[in-house]
Amino acid sequence: MKKQTFLLGFSIILFFFSLTITKAQSPEQNLEKLGIALPKVSPPVANYVNAVRVGNLLYLAGKGPSKPDGSYITGKLGKDLSIEQGYEAAKLVAIAHISVLKAELGDLKKVKRIVKVLGMVNCLDTFADQPKVINGYSDMMVAIFGEKGKHARSAVGMYALPMNIAVEVEVIVEIED
Amino acid sequence: MKKQTFLLGFSIILFFFSLTITKAQSPEQNLEKLGIALPKVSPPVANYVNAVRVGNLLYLAGKGPSKPDGSYITGKLGKDLSIEQGYEAAKLVAIAHISVLKAELGDLKKVKRIVKVLGMVNCLDTFADQPKVINGYSDMMVAIFGEKGKHARSAVGMYALPMNIAVEVEVIVEIED
Amino acid sequence: MKKQTFLLGFSIILFFFSLTITKAQSPEQNLEKLGIALPKVSPPVANYVNAVRVGNLLYLAGKGPSKPDGSYITGKLGKDLSIEQGYEAAKLVAIAHISVLKAELGDLKKVKRIVKVLGMVNCLDTFADQPKVINGYSDMMVAIFGEKGKHARSAVGMYALPMNIAVEVEVIVEIED
Repeated sequence: MKKQTFLLGFSIILFFFSLTITKAQSPEQNLEKLGIALPKVSPPVANYVNAVRVGNLLYLAGKGPSKPDGSYITGKLGKDLSIEQGYEAAKLVAIAHISVLKAELGDLKKVKRIVKVLGMVNCLDTFADQPKVINGYSDMMVAIFGEKGKHARSAVGMYALPMNIAVEVEVIVEIED
Repeated sequence: MKKQTFLLGFSIILFFFSLTITKAQSPEQNLEKLGIALPKVSPPVANYVNAVRVGNLLYLAGKGPSKPDGSYITGKLGKDLSIEQGYEAAKLVAIAHISVLKAELGDLKKVKRIVKVLGMVNCLDTFADQPKVINGYSDMMVAIFGEKGKHARSAVGMYALPMNIAVEVEVIVEIED
Repeated sequence: MKKQTFLLGFSIILFFFSLTITKAQSPEQNLEKLGIALPKVSPPVANYVNAVRVGNLLYLAGKGPSKPDGSYITGKLGKDLSIEQGYEAAKLVAIAHISVLKAELGDLKKVKRIVKVLGMVNCLDTFADQPKVINGYSDMMVAIFGEKGKHARSAVGMYALPMNIAVEVEVIVEIED
């Protein structure tokens, strides 16, 4: 009898423990935990839209590293900005894309997978660490979406970007039905 | 009786009026109205094809600004060409893509959505107005396809493009079933 | 009776002949015939993955020209490398992607279509033969997958690529259900 009570108690503890480990944080909770307030989505700068959905794929327009005041981080890696500054800029691009996703989907839990990232770094031709810069984008996506945030990626060096922004990224996202 | 006749007449007028406002111009009519004759599709310059369809998505190969005589607009923005000349070049790239769509689909009404555009501008590193150049492409797509022509987009600056063409664009298009 | 025997024999010959002409080489056989041993898949250099599948599409991360010893072909076209050397580098990128496909799919016969290629060439701004370089990638894909290897493509010139690699390519592949 005593043994049964023990087993029952142990099972109840296991049950609640499993609840704890399977209760993943929502992307919104992850944002809050990191102290990130999503900025207002910046309007497209021309005759296009921020996102187009086809089936369960969402194609997002290229975004740059916009600061909370709406201005952009500008300059070239290898000349004006350090790798760390580029990394921080790439994080801001990820936040800009997450803002677009939030505006499009309402609930970030509808993100099924960050599928494909093209990360473009404004840099000198002697700069060879584009991956370390775009890691700012990738790390932020994984911090917010967990395993769903892991994507296929290219990271390349650009000669010129609009308004001399430091980083531009475009992304394809899979959405829950 | 008179009132009934009036109501009948009014209904008939409403009916024809509704016909008028719902009869959207076809893309082909829009091309004609703008005096645009679609050029012959230029063959791929190597071991690839102009378009690949997967499900209801059509992936188009990158195209350049080909003039009616088959030659290309070449040169770098910020040095050889003005923004206006770049804008006109980007319009020619849109027309080249519409030619490919016409050849693939027969009827441009089968275009459901211009989904995603990557606009690449041959330019100096001091040139920061890539969006104003690629607007030539975007504006043309919206002029021909209306709301269906509005796409997600990136516009970036390239160090070098094949044959020194001024603009190259690649695009993904959604097709009606 | 003799005529029937003749017809039977003729049918049997036809049957075996049809077997011969419908038995296409498998991609693995094509690799073997060309003496290509697939290298081990190089791990992603950061917080991302080599491939993401959505429905029947596989998005592959950008890859560079890795040699059998794991090092990369580096340098700029128009300065450090000839077109032929660039072509050979692009072939190595194709082999790197085929290695990823083999690791993801097990059997390369599951490749239904190489859909879309973005070929990026590290080069000078005076270099205009990006298509001739990326042909190394395209020709290899067609050599291994036949008609299924023919893709839509863009070939462009980059100012800088990670680790100064000569070529980087990203690709979308359609997979059999």
